Amino acid sequence: MANIAIGKLDFPKVSEQPVEIVERKGTGHPDTICDALGEELSIALSKLYREECGAIMHHNVDKALLIGGIADPKFGGGSMISPIEIYLTGRAINEINGKRLPVEELAIETAHKWLKENIPNLDVSKHVIIHPKLKPGSKDLVELFERFQLKGEVPLANDTSFGVGHAPFDDIETIVYEVERALNSKEFKKEHPYLGEDIKVMGVRNRDKIRITIAAAFVDRYVKDVDDYLNKKEVISNYAYSVAQNLTDRHVDIFLNTADDPENESVYITVTGTSAEAGDDGQIGRGNRVNGLITPYRPMSLEAAAGKNPVSHIGKIYNTAATDMAERIVSEIEEVEEVYVYLVSQIGKPITEPQVCDIKLRVNGEIKGLEEKVRKIAQEEIDNLPNTWQKFLERKFRLY
Amino acid sequence: MANIAIGKLDFPKVSEQPVEIVERKGTGHPDTICDALGEELSIALSKLYREECGAIMHHNVDKALLIGGIADPKFGGGSMISPIEIYLTGRAINEINGKRLPVEELAIETAHKWLKENIPNLDVSKHVIIHPKLKPGSKDLVELFERFQLKGEVPLANDTSFGVGHAPFDDIETIVYEVERALNSKEFKKEHPYLGEDIKVMGVRNRDKIRITIAAAFVDRYVKDVDDYLNKKEVISNYAYSVAQNLTDRHVDIFLNTADDPENESVYITVTGTSAEAGDDGQIGRGNRVNGLITPYRPMSLEAAAGKNPVSHIGKIYNTAATDMAERIVSEIEEVEEVYVYLVSQIGKPITEPQVCDIKLRVNGEIKGLEEKVRKIAQEEIDNLPNTWQKFLERKFRLY
Amino acid sequence: MANIAIGKLDFPKVSEQPVEIVERKGTGHPDTICDALGEELSIALSKLYREECGAIMHHNVDKALLIGGIADPKFGGGSMISPIEIYLTGRAINEINGKRLPVEELAIETAHKWLKENIPNLDVSKHVIIHPKLKPGSKDLVELFERFQLKGEVPLANDTSFGVGHAPFDDIETIVYEVERALNSKEFKKEHPYLGEDIKVMGVRNRDKIRITIAAAFVDRYVKDVDDYLNKKEVISNYAYSVAQNLTDRHVDIFLNTADDPENESVYITVTGTSAEAGDDGQIGRGNRVNGLITPYRPMSLEAAAGKNPVSHIGKIYNTAATDMAERIVSEIEEVEEVYVYLVSQIGKPITEPQVCDIKLRVNGEIKGLEEKVRKIAQEEIDNLPNTWQKFLERKFRLY
Amino acid sequence: MANIAIGKLDFPKVSEQPVEIVERKGTGHPDTICDALGEELSIALSKLYREECGAIMHHNVDKALLIGGIADPKFGGGSMISPIEIYLTGRAINEINGKRLPVEELAIETAHKWLKENIPNLDVSKHVIIHPKLKPGSKDLVELFERFQLKGEVPLANDTSFGVGHAPFDDIETIVYEVERALNSKEFKKEHPYLGEDIKVMGVRNRDKIRITIAAAFVDRYVKDVDDYLNKKEVISNYAYSVAQNLTDRHVDIFLNTADDPENESVYITVTGTSAEAGDDGQIGRGNRVNGLITPYRPMSLEAAAGKNPVSHIGKIYNTAATDMAERIVSEIEEVEEVYVYLVSQIGKPITEPQVCDIKLRVNGEIKGLEEKVRKIAQEEIDNLPNTWQKFLERKFRLY
Repeated sequence: MANIAIGKLDFPKVSEQPVEIVERKGTGHPDTICDALGEELSIALSKLYREECGAIMHHNVDKALLIGGIADPKFGGGSMISPIEIYLTGRAINEINGKRLPVEELAIETAHKWLKENIPNLDVSKHVIIHPKLKPGSKDLVELFERFQLKGEVPLANDTSFGVGHAPFDDIETIVYEVERALNSKEFKKEHPYLGEDIKVMGVRNRDKIRITIAAAFVDRYVKDVDDYLNKKEVISNYAYSVAQNLTDRHVDIFLNTADDPENESVYITVTGTSAEAGDDGQIGRGNRVNGLITPYRPMSLEAAAGKNPVSHIGKIYNTAATDMAERIVSEIEEVEEVYVYLVSQIGKPITEPQVCDIKLRVNGEIKGLEEKVRKIAQEEIDNLPNTWQKFLERKFRLY
Repeated sequence: MANIAIGKLDFPKVSEQPVEIVERKGTGHPDTICDALGEELSIALSKLYREECGAIMHHNVDKALLIGGIADPKFGGGSMISPIEIYLTGRAINEINGKRLPVEELAIETAHKWLKENIPNLDVSKHVIIHPKLKPGSKDLVELFERFQLKGEVPLANDTSFGVGHAPFDDIETIVYEVERALNSKEFKKEHPYLGEDIKVMGVRNRDKIRITIAAAFVDRYVKDVDDYLNKKEVISNYAYSVAQNLTDRHVDIFLNTADDPENESVYITVTGTSAEAGDDGQIGRGNRVNGLITPYRPMSLEAAAGKNPVSHIGKIYNTAATDMAERIVSEIEEVEEVYVYLVSQIGKPITEPQVCDIKLRVNGEIKGLEEKVRKIAQEEIDNLPNTWQKFLERKFRLY
Repeated sequence: MANIAIGKLDFPKVSEQPVEIVERKGTGHPDTICDALGEELSIALSKLYREECGAIMHHNVDKALLIGGIADPKFGGGSMISPIEIYLTGRAINEINGKRLPVEELAIETAHKWLKENIPNLDVSKHVIIHPKLKPGSKDLVELFERFQLKGEVPLANDTSFGVGHAPFDDIETIVYEVERALNSKEFKKEHPYLGEDIKVMGVRNRDKIRITIAAAFVDRYVKDVDDYLNKKEVISNYAYSVAQNLTDRHVDIFLNTADDPENESVYITVTGTSAEAGDDGQIGRGNRVNGLITPYRPMSLEAAAGKNPVSHIGKIYNTAATDMAERIVSEIEEVEEVYVYLVSQIGKPITEPQVCDIKLRVNGEIKGLEEKVRKIAQEEIDNLPNTWQKFLERKFRLY
Repeated sequence: MANIAIGKLDFPKVSEQPVEIVERKGTGHPDTICDALGEELSIALSKLYREECGAIMHHNVDKALLIGGIADPKFGGGSMISPIEIYLTGRAINEINGKRLPVEELAIETAHKWLKENIPNLDVSKHVIIHPKLKPGSKDLVELFERFQLKGEVPLANDTSFGVGHAPFDDIETIVYEVERALNSKEFKKEHPYLGEDIKVMGVRNRDKIRITIAAAFVDRYVKDVDDYLNKKEVISNYAYSVAQNLTDRHVDIFLNTADDPENESVYITVTGTSAEAGDDGQIGRGNRVNGLITPYRPMSLEAAAGKNPVSHIGKIYNTAATDMAERIVSEIEEVEEVYVYLVSQIGKPITEPQVCDIKLRVNGEIKGLEEKVRKIAQEEIDNLPNTWQKFLERKFRLY
């Protein structure tokens, strides 16, 4: 039995406190691009390893660096001047039983594939250079992986680390998340191809007023001139408002691309739909947490989950597990209004034996009667940790 | 007058909650190295710009990537096999009035200097390759900087962003911070040169039991054999215990290098004193927050302060200001036991006009009578924001 | 009037000396790839500059480095493991009248285009990483270029340098050149897609015996097994023999892929048709001279023509001009059997005023009566040097 | 017995022909730097391999790329702005019996050492970035090397290739070589520290007039102003003249830094003594041949010897052997005035069994009587080829 502590959330709801701040960096933000490429590479490596030897072998490709390019955006269509460079870094076994594996090729291919699908105005053949910088890593770890994966042993925690999660999202969290998702949905883009993917949403609530500040890159070839830009900006702004207003009873204001200076024709247009084309750099782990948000009024882990190996990396598994557990508790136990989960590992111990699983509840009534239910869910989730890797491979978590 | 909200911390102290987690990545940790090199480069650039034109010009060198090398540590002294590579990335004006400035040379020189002073067993001439990858950035920003710096205008916030801070440190926070500082102090190192700089301290409190888990790299040429290692490990462990025990009434256990397997001669020795030599990569912004700690039970910002320009970068200025403000309030107003500060900027507005400055107090008695004092300190700190850059140049903040 | 010296070739013909050695590195050889990419980039830049400001601006992109990849070729089709990396280096103006030009994008695009057309089994999207490393170079040179190109002045020699050429090819030179051209022709490849582009031909004549040693990469997916390989090898060998035998009365032997060891299934198959995929690196200027051959028994310049600017770079212009002049003299003056031309520049003087133009003739009869005709052709060619750039842009020279 | 052909040089001496061109790129020329670093790395690797396993293992580090930096030279002392980057590329076994060897560290260390000793005004810690890009290469070759080195078998030629050499140097060859050597001698530098190492000497003889054009970088911190520069330039020019005049009876003119424009203060000063600091790139194999010169009127090989493995690489061994053989024949057989040697290998055959060794003599009298002596020397040199590697390790050849 895991060491599960169940307690009370004994402070007012964040959503009832006077101020709240929530942020989400959308698909095309340089940090999100790095997260995505790291995670996609981890998935691709995991699949390659499973094909080659039936097991996911050691890898941690959780460091990436995107160096912004130079672009010359213009109404009607400008051009890239100097390409974006992306370093994909970390450890990945590149030889199994004497056979050299194409980990670098895979890194390039996977990155191109994700970029093509997700940043369609970026021409991967010439606007971006992928530098795969992968080293094989320690041989000891290979043996460990074989034990876990091939013989079915429970993986051991690779570190003393922790994960945190909370549920449910409150109104401003939901708004920030859903506004970005709506603006970056395939359906919306089909109708509004002039909207790029680099969409950053920052929500600040001041008592009952919610200000949603959006920085969204437009794609120059779909915008004729400043007037056209301003018209399209209003369309986007209105749509964001409609999405947001549906999710709260509070007053919402939308501020879109506030740094624009239309009189000087200085507005936020890009060639590719992402600010990575000119000036903005990115890294893994500098953006959204595993629940898709940045929430300074909530407990957060600094762990970067993207790119880490899904079998034994505590920072990846415990954060997603804590979030999952919180969501299950809230959805399955009616009386629970809100829950925070903290999971702390012990290095060298099975991942199913955390130092502590600290669960804090906000309930309608007494905690007492619910403890067993909560504990049951928690234990199930913990017992299930050795299978979490499958969910990562199926992209079941938000993760970034 | 700034929009200052003063409220109550209406939940039990973190130190009285059943579980608490605190972490600190020491000087030689790959993430900390990246933070340090980014920040040192920002300081060096700021000084260069001031010499060249009397003002700090635009720069943000807040992205760095350290790719671990390959090493062959051995008792008595091993060797590096393949060097560490460090990419220093970002924007930095490299031309003023037609004169090309040596920003790349400065990056290399500054990095070498810091590494020599702080990781003395690393031979910078051959164990590390510095890749300066700096681009000049936008010309618009240059004009802005001239206005702020040469004409004395208050800088405008470059982003909608926020900073958070709290004070004072509780016992486990103090322990985690001070144990690393003690082990990495020049005095201690003089007596114990076998201890490297890559020291990660993780504290987990479970009610009244504090477990301090330390991962500390030893330097191979000062360690004769396994027995010698084990003896020296005990010395370190005992010293860490003595430091920690003095800072709390709770029960403390020290766990040092728990992954060691001395029977197989597998212990944590390194050639250089940092795990960056073999296997561990690093980035800016993935380690300690501006107060020197990672504290998932406290509000945290994900903003990386290191390397950002100290004049108008909100993510840097507001985080340090919030921490400073919190520390002043606690130290100057006796009745305040604890304080959390949140500062939120408005993009395009003067940095002295935050959207909100949210201050939450835990007081001995009523808040009412203290509000004016608190507001006064807050306003002073806010008024003083345009001068914060000087403190960055003088390394007055912990920052990482 | 240029300083034209006309003399006699007073030694026996190379083709009548007992030994002769001639070599050609074919299209897919790593050195030839580098030459081609450098030259294509120079052409693309020249066109870009002409579009942007009506003149070819300063550039010299005559340094390139190809770092071979890692491949796993297999009968029926293997795979690339780690990509080829190509650094394209040199100087190229990247800003005209304040407008930043896309020189890096152009480098990538041009390289991809050439590779796709010439090494069709290489998938440029993932088997190769292009690193454009271009620096703007000196501003003084920009002004010079404007004078030459916009005002029609005769360019000044950028260096004290020289060019050499000879005509006609003797039998073994013709064989070495034509065998590679035949094997790499589109028509031949259509019928024989299993033959790659990396074809190196070395001819050694020992009195009247000519040994043609060919190293030719096969493409694995078109070859079933060793037997199939050996059959196809015979086809190629026979074809090379038929091409060669038609070009000489001497005895010819063909040796194809002599390092093969078919019993151990060790034969020269590749995934991509070039040895660059695994093991072989390349550089500009290490392969064929501007006449397409390496001829140690003939005078040679070490100058790399590929990638140099076509307006004023002596090393490029004089070598092609000397070859051209030699070919014209031989073809237009019946009595001339053979000619060697040496052109030496004076740095800072117009390119139409060489220090010396040294012409050595082998004639049927007396030189005397031919001198005027030779001088006329030479003077015409020299007068025409300022227009040579057009021929480079139209790819009128062999060049590599 | 080797296939040795002995014939007659049946054309007038080059030194008696009307025109002759000879060039030498001095120590600090970017191409020479590349040659030197490649060769020094080969020597260092050879020594490392011998220490580790008693034999020189496979390596070919004969590709290098130097990308020029940016500098701001000034009378009295300027500064570097952006560093020189040097890629050292090729193949080198990096693991022997499971032990990883520090080939990258060695590359950095060796490069720094050579640069410090030979370009003293270059601060290797910040003016230059060394990128070691070495790949392990083929395993088959390792076995071959073990056979040659450990079991004493004669190495097999790795390629069909050739080497050429001639002796003795004529007057202009001697002048070009000795002028550079004199200007770059330690003794001369001690007295004249203002002279840099990047000294290119081009000699053009027009009948009995020899023009020596020298481009020589001056070191800015040792030069006060233009007048001082002009004075020092005269000193150098006079010294070069005195060296040259002693070596010929012909008329000699010295032209030093002819592109200088002193009225506009545009003269050839540098911070570091090499043009690599700003603008000039370099590669291996683009400069001097193994005899230290570039001689278009003599037979030349395009083979780059620098960096190649000294055990079995024909391009390296045969070129130096041909030069050596030519020098011995001339010095040991009084009647021989001049000799050209061509050596052609057979791929896969022992290096002591060339396809042909073609020796052409210019003698005072009849060849007949000398043939035996010549053949004896040639055979001795050929028999001795398997030991040539020792001379490379002892730097017995000029090589560049």
